[in-house]
Amino acid sequence: MNNIAVVLAGGQGKRMKSDSPKVLCNVLGEPMLEWVISACESAGLEKLCVVKGFCAEKIDEYLAARKSKSEVTAVLQAEQLGTGHAVMMTEEFLKANAGGNVLILNGDAPFIDAETINSALDEHTSTGSAVTVVTAKIDDPKGYGRIIRGANGFEAIVEHKDCTPEQLAVNEVNSGCYWFGTADLLEALGEITTDNAQGEYYLTDCIEILLKKGRTVGAFTSCNPSVVLGANDRRALLELNNIARMEIIGRHLDNGIEFTCTDGVSVGRAVTIGRGTVIHAGTELRGNTVIGENCVIGRNCILENVTVGSGVDLNNVQAFDSVIDDDVKIGPFVQVRPGCHIKRGAKIGDFVEIKNSTIGEYTAVAHLTYVGDSDVGANVNFGCGVVTVNYNGEKKFRTVIGDNAFIGCNTNLVAPVKIGNSAYTAAGSTITKDVPDNALAIERGKQDIKADYAVKKLAHHRQKLEDKKNGKK
Amino acid sequence: MNNIAVVLAGGQGKRMKSDSPKVLCNVLGEPMLEWVISACESAGLEKLCVVKGFCAEKIDEYLAARKSKSEVTAVLQAEQLGTGHAVMMTEEFLKANAGGNVLILNGDAPFIDAETINSALDEHTSTGSAVTVVTAKIDDPKGYGRIIRGANGFEAIVEHKDCTPEQLAVNEVNSGCYWFGTADLLEALGEITTDNAQGEYYLTDCIEILLKKGRTVGAFTSCNPSVVLGANDRRALLELNNIARMEIIGRHLDNGIEFTCTDGVSVGRAVTIGRGTVIHAGTELRGNTVIGENCVIGRNCILENVTVGSGVDLNNVQAFDSVIDDDVKIGPFVQVRPGCHIKRGAKIGDFVEIKNSTIGEYTAVAHLTYVGDSDVGANVNFGCGVVTVNYNGEKKFRTVIGDNAFIGCNTNLVAPVKIGNSAYTAAGSTITKDVPDNALAIERGKQDIKADYAVKKLAHHRQKLEDKKNGKK
Amino acid sequence: MNNIAVVLAGGQGKRMKSDSPKVLCNVLGEPMLEWVISACESAGLEKLCVVKGFCAEKIDEYLAARKSKSEVTAVLQAEQLGTGHAVMMTEEFLKANAGGNVLILNGDAPFIDAETINSALDEHTSTGSAVTVVTAKIDDPKGYGRIIRGANGFEAIVEHKDCTPEQLAVNEVNSGCYWFGTADLLEALGEITTDNAQGEYYLTDCIEILLKKGRTVGAFTSCNPSVVLGANDRRALLELNNIARMEIIGRHLDNGIEFTCTDGVSVGRAVTIGRGTVIHAGTELRGNTVIGENCVIGRNCILENVTVGSGVDLNNVQAFDSVIDDDVKIGPFVQVRPGCHIKRGAKIGDFVEIKNSTIGEYTAVAHLTYVGDSDVGANVNFGCGVVTVNYNGEKKFRTVIGDNAFIGCNTNLVAPVKIGNSAYTAAGSTITKDVPDNALAIERGKQDIKADYAVKKLAHHRQKLEDKKNGKK
Repeated sequence: MNNIAVVLAGGQGKRMKSDSPKVLCNVLGEPMLEWVISACESAGLEKLCVVKGFCAEKIDEYLAARKSKSEVTAVLQAEQLGTGHAVMMTEEFLKANAGGNVLILNGDAPFIDAETINSALDEHTSTGSAVTVVTAKIDDPKGYGRIIRGANGFEAIVEHKDCTPEQLAVNEVNSGCYWFGTADLLEALGEITTDNAQGEYYLTDCIEILLKKGRTVGAFTSCNPSVVLGANDRRALLELNNIARMEIIGRHLDNGIEFTCTDGVSVGRAVTIGRGTVIHAGTELRGNTVIGENCVIGRNCILENVTVGSGVDLNNVQAFDSVIDDDVKIGPFVQVRPGCHIKRGAKIGDFVEIKNSTIGEYTAVAHLTYVGDSDVGANVNFGCGVVTVNYNGEKKFRTVIGDNAFIGCNTNLVAPVKIGNSAYTAAGSTITKDVPDNALAIERGKQDIKADYAVKKLAHHRQKLEDKKNGKK
Repeated sequence: MNNIAVVLAGGQGKRMKSDSPKVLCNVLGEPMLEWVISACESAGLEKLCVVKGFCAEKIDEYLAARKSKSEVTAVLQAEQLGTGHAVMMTEEFLKANAGGNVLILNGDAPFIDAETINSALDEHTSTGSAVTVVTAKIDDPKGYGRIIRGANGFEAIVEHKDCTPEQLAVNEVNSGCYWFGTADLLEALGEITTDNAQGEYYLTDCIEILLKKGRTVGAFTSCNPSVVLGANDRRALLELNNIARMEIIGRHLDNGIEFTCTDGVSVGRAVTIGRGTVIHAGTELRGNTVIGENCVIGRNCILENVTVGSGVDLNNVQAFDSVIDDDVKIGPFVQVRPGCHIKRGAKIGDFVEIKNSTIGEYTAVAHLTYVGDSDVGANVNFGCGVVTVNYNGEKKFRTVIGDNAFIGCNTNLVAPVKIGNSAYTAAGSTITKDVPDNALAIERGKQDIKADYAVKKLAHHRQKLEDKKNGKK
Repeated sequence: MNNIAVVLAGGQGKRMKSDSPKVLCNVLGEPMLEWVISACESAGLEKLCVVKGFCAEKIDEYLAARKSKSEVTAVLQAEQLGTGHAVMMTEEFLKANAGGNVLILNGDAPFIDAETINSALDEHTSTGSAVTVVTAKIDDPKGYGRIIRGANGFEAIVEHKDCTPEQLAVNEVNSGCYWFGTADLLEALGEITTDNAQGEYYLTDCIEILLKKGRTVGAFTSCNPSVVLGANDRRALLELNNIARMEIIGRHLDNGIEFTCTDGVSVGRAVTIGRGTVIHAGTELRGNTVIGENCVIGRNCILENVTVGSGVDLNNVQAFDSVIDDDVKIGPFVQVRPGCHIKRGAKIGDFVEIKNSTIGEYTAVAHLTYVGDSDVGANVNFGCGVVTVNYNGEKKFRTVIGDNAFIGCNTNLVAPVKIGNSAYTAAGSTITKDVPDNALAIERGKQDIKADYAVKKLAHHRQKLEDKKNGKK
């Protein structure tokens, strides 16, 4: 069977006051459209058609940059003439994939999920329905279209403003997501009109038409009430962020992850965390980040696409597109830029940046150091203030450091340069030539002493202490 | 017409347990008194009199330091004998400005706003009232004086403890803010007595007196229910902070600003933000900060009196009294101290401090660098660990760096010093003399190698790796 | 009288999905068991017996590492046969300390407090009761055992599932904490059976037995409703953290401490703070931290076992096991590692690490500096990028710096080394030998200039600026 999806993504969302289409507004760092498309992909749907409208080129850019598992095409709805009109734009797509069913979704209702999609499809096909409305029961149905069920099942969707007092009390509402038989949809689309107050084509009219034709129309109640949620302004968008945030945190709590305080904590949808790990306040985990067991992450870490082993301790660390092995300890105040591999047992201390480098097992980079474009062996000790000089104004070069090497404080390692195993560089040296294994490299002048030089020089400075002490009396 | 204001600011606020007058307790970093005075100034009132009492000298200090648009004077209420008594202290001020109306406000009710002040005045004058009480309708009126209205309008303010059950149900309450005809107030003040349980002079008695004299007394209902809020203890003060925080964030949301998570976010009253800008968690925007469009600010930024262009990205940046132009990227872990101008397209990386300096267009200061008292040209590249040596123990001097210069890693630039256009300094050099355009400056010794020096020196260090590896087996 | 306590700590807490016993799960950074034991110790109880079960060795480790004021022993409950069975395991302990009363507590109900323990004991002894149940009245009693009182006082504890509708409405509930006459408990324990649905020994059966024997049984209502709270999963544990967090913050608010925004703020139980001090968002105060008056702490500080004087300003500082005197200013982005004493009026700026060092009065360490294993005098000025080279790969050594010294930028002080009073080191020098008082030490080569060296070298770099400027047009 050829089951496909159509995602409505044409709206501007004027109240967002954005230069982008509404569906590109982010929830937990990902466009709402991404949430919807990826739910379809998780549900196994292989062909999607996105209906674009406002700032259509931004939708194209977004889709072009996306690594899609499914085949995603887009059609333009040049004029905004209603949801039915939007779906009419996909006529070609529907005809090319007829013979199955089509899921119609709103691109700005990000919390649709694969289980809902598939369970609704099961019900849709097993009942032989022409259309199945996805619904949910919610505490406060105000503003939503109510699902009216009668003795024979689904009867109607009644908009809030048209409800009788009895209907207002109904708490099952329309999510705006539907499974149609593709042929049924095409048939009904041909019959809807703009004969209504707004002069628009309504997709919901298709349902009425199919009902009148005596087709089976069903309503599937999702157990995820969030499927009905969308955002028309920045306040609602913030609310969606908060709902997603707490929902995902709750799932990790259930898996045995400890959160000491969730203030400022945000965990992306795709992130996995091992049990026994503690997440502290202010921590953001993004993208395809994977964290092992019994780690301590936070406060105030940002990890994006980082693979972290077990027993790792990160304190005020920002890390991107890197791998951190077991038992590594990093922080506070450290940046790990893309392309790093920090191996087991390494220790990275305060005010250190590591970029595009491998740090060997048990190596220590304690403070105020920049390691860039380097291959560092095991058990290396970096003094404070070491700099790998990887750029000469023209090109970048690599630094190679052997096992057990000892790099003195404030050493410049001018790449390309190689420091041998168990080699030693003296503090304050600028190393421009390779250092053999076991050798000491030193670049330093002679220390001169000029007696009493500072007597006059620091007179003013010394006076300050006197002033401060007197000022305090 | 001569319209003036009297701000009651004499209270200690014992439960604050502070050494300052209660009105100097802060909401969003500004004293409550500042909120009240600036609301009066926004409303166009030109003469204010502050009644001080507890720690009066701190009120004087505060007013002296304040840049007032209006003429603000202060009078002392030496004894705390009630609100009526406090206003009596301003008799001279009132007489000197008679012939108009006077607004009486509580200095510890910070959320009074210019629109409420002026709309209440309009009603006050158009109805020819002797006094107009500013009121608001609130959800939980417990503890507040109720506004009792009858067939002929305003009838009385009844304190909570004196209310009948019917009156308790009234949700319109007294804000403690009033417009009086100045002459009416002076007349009524002369007639109030301490003939009550507390033996104090109550300002509200003036209202009753004027009513009894047959004068018109009105009540203006503000549409801002927060005008009634005040704080008597630190819990209530925290609550005022939260209300102000979320109120201001809400206003920016409505303007098209994106907040991904408001935890720890605080935006000062005067801050402006362009649409499309994203504010991340933990960010505090203070003072007269101005932010352009499509920026990303946060996490954990503090900006105070900073002007930020458009397309700027700040991550974990603290910046004060500076200007940051379009398309600048800064962070993480950076401090921009007062007096900086970071020009278009510049990039400032991790662990960098910039102070009292200009950074030219497209210049990069990537890591672990201090640029102080410097004028830096365009497209300059700073290596890691560069220091502008601006202080010699006696005086501070400036460093000047030309366009396209390349400053090597761990270079000391000993000011006063000038690096020419497209000049180059070698890594590890201490530069004490000017460098001409296009020249290389190098201060460095010869690299010596002492073979096998480290064999014994690092024996202990090498052993540690063996121990660690064995320990893990 | 010999009053003792038994703490039930055998449970696994399966839903925690932890490799540790449930009682070792943390609330505000301390195991729940620690909260319970320390409450007993605060109440003056001198002998405690902990009943361990799941992962008993971790309880042993925890107790061995703990500095106990009381005598704490542990017994093993090898099989989990109910609370009565757990207490049976302590028979020897009870017999050895008979003749008094025994407090039975749940190790996973952390909010029991000394006042409740002692007030309950007072009631227990003054009424001559065989057992006194500690209870509390709570808003939502769902799930808790209800306390049924009749004309003659305590009648029964009825589990939620066994309650009549009338009993369900009772909001006084069992905390699971009891005072027993020790002899009474021993007697009753001998009579309980596993004759119930679960086939377990219930401690509550002891109460029924004693009632039937005609002994006096009482119920003491604690005024702290949190005594009944426990945690069976990570969600509930997070909730306990939040309750503890806000409870402790509330106590400090009442003491005159200002909190501007409590997001991410966590204050440990033992922390003391002086009035007038402001705590900003994201700040965590741990262990035995003591803070003086009129300080500003935060944003984003972590202090653990730190003693802070008055008038101190800390911004983005992490400090551990150290002392910071009055009027010190530190931050942003600073780490103070264990063993530091920062004396009055010192200033520590950005990207500085201090470790195991004394910093004298009014000394300034402004930026990008590491001071380790050092004794620094008063009024010393550190340039930017100074490093105390305290480790040579074999051993660590100390650096000593006299009063009024001036340490030039990017100086290496190779320990052991002594810098005299009012001595001066030139920027970029590596100092390996002692510097006498008032002397200048300089280690530096000659600055060479190679004219036009950079013309070709930076051609590519210069071109980039042109490209950027053109790209922007």
